[in-house]
This record gives sequence, structure tokens and C-alpha cells, in this order.
Amino acid sequence: MAPGRSLNDAGSGSGWRGAGRAGTPATLPGVPEQILVIGGVAAGMSAASRARRLAPAAAITVVERGPVAAYGACGLPHVLAGEIAIEDLIALPVATAREQRRIDVRLETEAIAIEPGRHRVRVRTGAAEQWLRYDRLVLATGAGPRWQPPPLRNIFGVQSWVDVVALQAALKSERPRRAVVVGAGYIGLEVAAALAARGLRVSVVDAHTLPLGRFEPTIAERLLAPMAAGGIEFRPGTRVTAATGATGGRVLGLETSTGAIEADLVLNCAGLRPQTTIAQAAGIALGSTGAIAVDDRQQTNVPGILAAGDCAETRDLVTGRPAWVPLGAPANKTGRVAGQNAAGARAARFPGGLGTLAVTLFGCDIGRTGLTLEQARGAGFDAAAVTVETSAQAGYLKRGGGTLRLTMVHQPSTGRLLGVHLMGPLGTVAGRLDAAAVALTARLTLESLETLDLAYAPTLAPLYEPLLIAAHNAMR
Amino acid sequence: MAPGRSLNDAGSGSGWRGAGRAGTPATLPGVPEQILVIGGVAAGMSAASRARRLAPAAAITVVERGPVAAYGACGLPHVLAGEIAIEDLIALPVATAREQRRIDVRLETEAIAIEPGRHRVRVRTGAAEQWLRYDRLVLATGAGPRWQPPPLRNIFGVQSWVDVVALQAALKSERPRRAVVVGAGYIGLEVAAALAARGLRVSVVDAHTLPLGRFEPTIAERLLAPMAAGGIEFRPGTRVTAATGATGGRVLGLETSTGAIEADLVLNCAGLRPQTTIAQAAGIALGSTGAIAVDDRQQTNVPGILAAGDCAETRDLVTGRPAWVPLGAPANKTGRVAGQNAAGARAARFPGGLGTLAVTLFGCDIGRTGLTLEQARGAGFDAAAVTVETSAQAGYLKRGGGTLRLTMVHQPSTGRLLGVHLMGPLGTVAGRLDAAAVALTARLTLESLETLDLAYAPTLAPLYEPLLIAAHNAMR
Repeated sequence: MAPGRSLNDAGSGSGWRGAGRAGTPATLPGVPEQILVIGGVAAGMSAASRARRLAPAAAITVVERGPVAAYGACGLPHVLAGEIAIEDLIALPVATAREQRRIDVRLETEAIAIEPGRHRVRVRTGAAEQWLRYDRLVLATGAGPRWQPPPLRNIFGVQSWVDVVALQAALKSERPRRAVVVGAGYIGLEVAAALAARGLRVSVVDAHTLPLGRFEPTIAERLLAPMAAGGIEFRPGTRVTAATGATGGRVLGLETSTGAIEADLVLNCAGLRPQTTIAQAAGIALGSTGAIAVDDRQQTNVPGILAAGDCAETRDLVTGRPAWVPLGAPANKTGRVAGQNAAGARAARFPGGLGTLAVTLFGCDIGRTGLTLEQARGAGFDAAAVTVETSAQAGYLKRGGGTLRLTMVHQPSTGRLLGVHLMGPLGTVAGRLDAAAVALTARLTLESLETLDLAYAPTLAPLYEPLLIAAHNAMR
Repeated sequence: MAPGRSLNDAGSGSGWRGAGRAGTPATLPGVPEQILVIGGVAAGMSAASRARRLAPAAAITVVERGPVAAYGACGLPHVLAGEIAIEDLIALPVATAREQRRIDVRLETEAIAIEPGRHRVRVRTGAAEQWLRYDRLVLATGAGPRWQPPPLRNIFGVQSWVDVVALQAALKSERPRRAVVVGAGYIGLEVAAALAARGLRVSVVDAHTLPLGRFEPTIAERLLAPMAAGGIEFRPGTRVTAATGATGGRVLGLETSTGAIEADLVLNCAGLRPQTTIAQAAGIALGSTGAIAVDDRQQTNVPGILAAGDCAETRDLVTGRPAWVPLGAPANKTGRVAGQNAAGARAARFPGGLGTLAVTLFGCDIGRTGLTLEQARGAGFDAAAVTVETSAQAGYLKRGGGTLRLTMVHQPSTGRLLGVHLMGPLGTVAGRLDAAAVALTARLTLESLETLDLAYAPTLAPLYEPLLIAAHNAMR
């Protein structure tokens, strides 16, 4: 059996979990008259656009709580850094969506209740409320901040357009000088770098000992020096216990497990949680991760209701288990799948993901795909890891190729690849990460990796790619 | 069965061809006392080094015709361009090979005959000849120029250290002003660019209508404008019929099928052929490609004699057929496999390659892996191709990401990927090519490609990678 097929077959039938466990929903054949999508950023607009293409006669409505739809939220830190205007992030202007794609986008409209039995959703626009009927409903309600800070001025999230517009305004009007970023995940670090570049004094606090909790420690530890060189103070092992300031007034600082920190600006980057309140209230089942359980067609346990993007679970292709991976690329892909299935067209499936994530921080590119060593052991694998450092180019061409560090997580007993983690100079990580992601998807063994026929040219890549060297070392 | 295993298993048993067809050679168990390697550039020195590691007690001798061993021939055009010194190409100084690796490297020593029955090779150093005994012999005689030009001054090859030293000397002493490069393959174009950068007027002639004959025409055609902008005159559809000049004198020009061209310097880049003369004379079988037939352990039809690198065939992983791919990366890899097997250690196998090739030309990166459309049809596939052009980054980050062109060759009847061909700005090709090479190796279907969890970040890669978009378009 060819690898590709085995993946496809694995996702066939009644789906792998979620809806399957809760009882397979009745198939909903035929073309729906009304498709309703809750949430209009990445997954929601992908779903609506895909459904429009496949169900040209259906009425399609998207309700979006915010003032803007279809924007690239991953670019918000670049807005903060002053590299682009926030309007540059708009992937599809609402007018275009309405006129050319005939999608009824309703902005500043919040879904407040779902009645699955009557196939309708209660929405609120300003003070006005109404019911919207649906034949198929796609939930794309996204994720929100895990930490709910007290109501003080100058504490901002950075997840949404509204967050960043408010933060930009405060940076101008209040001229803060001392920022504390709560959470040293990749978004926290992107925001810290952007604020430092704007001249603020920036500290980052995190409960863990290293930044980039999702990444392999061998990679994350290499970020400490560039962070410090970038002017960021990192306070590891620090839990925020309270924010100080008079209610309604400006934040004055944070109290933490390692002492008080002064701040006149606090950034809430302490992680996300799936926004599932109205789904739960309507009897839609959550999975073990706390996000909405879906099968590989993005169907929930309730017939006619699908979910996609940051509010829904996916499957981890390495462990085969549910995972919650709130990232832009899978949000777009699961949105497309949900939209295709909502349209009643040929069934589309999302086989799952690898948690592939890449980011540019402090002049380095950093990436991960598959499992970290800790995740692998937590999932029951007898896992090991090897780390190699190599040149990013042929040694004799010293064009700033720089050093690349790669950590490979693998299972010695089977020769299986479990994860790849990379850090290197700008432009040296994404492609290698993609090659690793393909290898993980196809379940290539280390032995196959070692002889892969990868690109070599003095200007482009070393004779032995770090992926091959790591595979060789892992087998020793 | 996991994909990786299926690949490995395909190569198990008595090998796939060559030696198998001609009668499987007797296994040669035990540790050899004397390993002899003919050729000391890429494959030969890889074989010797690997053998040394695995057979610490064996005597290992490498005979190399040239004055230098273990250098990176792929970097020779960069020497010509003045970017590096030729000495920078030395991967392993001969003194180090001799003293630290205990490899008896004999330079300027040519193998002139093999007597398999008596396990010995006749070699010549200067005027002196002698027999060298072997228990295992590795042939790494490489490739030489296909075109044998007449004996005129200022006609140079660019394959070897000696070629480039002589060419460099002529550039200084004879100050040529008008160069003609015969052959518009990637080496011809690298050499043309280097000479143009040194101020010569440069024409490139080729029998084909496009440069880069190994590449997909949709990609090669995009090079015409950058070539012209780089000051190179390209004469397509032009066969060289003669070189003009008095015997022993300086070349005056070329006569071609499209007319005469003046030249005071001619570069022989008209392609390569495997150097197999002494192998053939010793009864070692060639394969259908004209290179030495080997099995997946690099064994020839003669027991105890292995071959690796540019003188030997490999297997094409897409077609399953013999292929001749004279490139640095497979030369190193097959050399290692030959060295391991010559050492009598745990059997190593080379499963085959994809003809993966990447090069930087005129400010563009260009790459190929797998089959071109023409190759695919020639191999009997009902093949089709799709071409996409996309941004190399998220659209809103206009950091010179530029446009990437990708052509995907596939088999519509089975959804099989057959080849991927790319051209884009510097740094945008190698990683994507590697991801495609892994997908080809693993035989992922287009359907699996479309949902691959590849890296996305605004600074690094677009939301939908061109590989995914092409797979999607190919399935429409």
C-alpha cells in the first residue's frame, strides 16, 4: 500500500473520533439552501468561500463579532512592529466577499445561542437580536485568551484586530515606557520584539524555565542569547498572581511568584483556549483537549453542525490522538474541508496535522513539526533525541550561511521519526521543516531518511543535509 | 507496511538489476585485508573513508589520476567566478587522509588495467608502472566530457581541478575576450555567468531550443530573460560541427549548424559520459545507460568489484529503472555505500535517486526532482503537468519574497506525483524541492499533498504552499 493511500484510508469510514464516539451523525445529503458560519476570520471565511464555490445556489451567511473579517491574524505582530499597516492584513475585503462571492457577511454580529432542534442561531448586532435559520452550520468561533486580566487600562490581548487597534492607540496616547509580556510563547516573543523595536523597555514572564514552550528545549534554549541581545529581559519560572492598579485605572505592575514588576503596559500572551461556550450550551460535544470534537469531515456530534479552526480539535498524525493546535494554516485547511462538506459536495477530509510551526524571532528562524521528546514520551513512545549542528551551505561558500541546529526525536526500537525541531539563520528553516513534515506524514523510517535524494548545491544546501546527518546519528 | 520499509524492502534480496541480471556475484564475507579504490574525488574518497571507519585493520589505497583528491568539484564554477580560491574546495587534505585516516592516497596515479582473476590493478605514476593487489576494488572513475575537441589552445573542460587551473592560467596569460560555451546545461550556464562577470563577451550554444535540458521547459524558459540580462548571448538549436584554428595553435572560432562564431576561448560543457574504459576491458558489465551496472549494494557483475559515483548507474525511484545521474550528492552517497560493503560490514544499500538538482543562476534558484513531463511520458506514464505561480511569502509582507514558479508532473489516472520543478528568488527553492523529493520517495498521492501540514509564517512561507496549490489544481 502506498503511504499516501494509507493516510487517506485511515480517515475513511465514519471518522476517527468525536462524532463517531458520540454516535455518527446522520449523513445530510443534498444541497443545503442556507449555510451559516459563525466566525469570519480564517476558518470561517475559508469555509464560506469553499461552500460558495461548490454550492452556487445556496444562501451563505457569516456572522463575525469583530469589525473586520477575513484578515491574516498571524500578521498582527508585524503591524505592531510597524512593518505593515493593519489594513494590509485583509485577505478579502468584505465588499468583495459580499458582491463577488455573494457571502452575506455580517460584522459586529455575535452569535449568542444555537438551537440545533430548530436549526437556528440567535445573533445580536448592537442592541438588536434575531434568529438566523440554517441547513448547515459551521462553527469557527476561534480561540480567546486563557488569562482573564482584571479591568485595568493598558492591559491588552494581541489575538484580534480589535486588540491591536486598541493597543496601537494606547501606544500613541499613553506613551507607555515599561511593558511586561505575560507568556513567552512565540506570539509573546513576537510582541516583545515589536515593542522593544518601538523603544519600550520589555520584560517577558513565563511560568516555564525556557521560552517557546511548544518547542524542543534544545532549540528554545538557543533563543535566550538573541533575546537578551534584542534587549528583552526574560523572567523564567514566574507566575503572575495579580495585576496592580485602581479599578478602571491604568495598570501599575504585576505581582508574580518571583516578585513585583512595574509596568505601564501589560500584554496578555499567556496562551489561548478554544471558544466553545455557545457550542457547549447547545449540546455539542467537546473532546479530551477541551476543543470541539469533530470527525475527519469536521462534523460535530450534532447532525448538520460542523466546526473548524481554533475552536475545534484535530488529529495528531504521529500519535493518532486528538490534538488542539490553534494555528493559521490548519484553521484555513479545516475551514475549507468544513465548507466543502457543508455544501453537500464530494466529501472532503482533513487527515490531521503535525503541529508544524515556524516563526522568525530575533533574527533567527525557528521551527517544529511532530512531537517534542517530552510529548513523545508522554504519548507512550520509547523516544530518544539527537541534535546536530551543521552549516546551512557548503562549507567553502561563506555567504552568511551560518549554523543550523536540528533536533530529531525518534523511536529507536522501530526506527520511526517522531519530530524535527530546527533553528537557523533567516531563510534556512521553513523548507527543511517542510521536508521533515512530509517525512512524518509518510512515516518514513530513519533508514529511508539517510539516503533521501535532497537538493545539493554549493549556494543552496550542504552536501549532507542536517536531516540526513541526524537520521544517520540516530541509528548509530 | 510503513512507506520507509517498503522502500527498503524493494532493495533487498539479490539487488534489482545489473549484477542480478548478469548472475548474482558470490557474497564475499569476512574482513578484507586490502581495499583498493580507483578515483579519489567524491565517491572514491567517500568509499575509502567509510571503509576505514568500518574496517580499521584493512589496508586502504586510493589511486587518483589528478594532483588533488577529495575536493568539491561542484564548487569549480565559483572558483572561476572569483568567489573562492580553488584550495577552498579541498574537503579533506591528502595529508590528513594519509595520517589520520590511514588511507594510502596516491596522486597523479592512473589505473590502466584490472585483472579480476588475479585480484590486481595495473597503475602508472609518471613513467613507473606496478600492480596493486586487492581483496575488494571500488571503481570511482567518474565521468569525462562527451565532446572530444581538437587539439587547439584555449579549449577547456571545467570538470576537474586540472581543467580549472589550466583555464585560470589561460585567462591571465592569454587574456581572451570572446568566449563560447558549448552546452547550456547548468554547468555551462554557471561557467558562462562566471566568465561574463570577469568581463568576457560570452555566447552559449546548445543543440536544444532551451537551456537546462534536464529541467522542465516551463522552468527553463524563464531563465532566458535573466540570462540575456546577465549579458549572455544564447544560440539555441545550434550544433557545433568543428573548431577552427591551426593544429596546436589557439582556437579561432567554432563552426556550427547555424553559422560560424568567433572565439578565442571555448568551454567544453557539452555534457558528460561515464568513464568506463578499464572496467569494460576487464569484463565488468555496463547497463542500459552506458554506465557500470550495479545492484543496490553498488556491486558490479564481478565478485569483489564495486562501483560508485559518476561511473555507475543508479536506480530512478520514480520509474524503478536504471538511471545515470552524474551529480555530487549521489556520488557521495553511493561511495559511502560501496565503502561500507567493501569493508565487509553490515550490508548498506542505496535505494536509488530522483535526479534532484538545484542550482543558482543569474540571481534565481532553480531546481528539479523526479521526472519532467517528457521523461514521464517516455517512461510510459499517462502524465500531465500543472504550473502555478505564487508569492514566496505571505502577500502582505513585501520583503522581496518575489514570485515562485512550480511545475508539478503527475499521473491523473492514479493521483501519483511524478516530478516537481521550481524556479524562484534566492533561497526559495531548495527547501521546497526537498519536501517534494520526500513526497516522491514516499509516493504520497496528490490528495495527501493537498493537506500536508507545512510551515506557515508571514515571514517564511505563504499560507498555501505552491506544492499544495499545485496538487489541488492537478486534481481538478
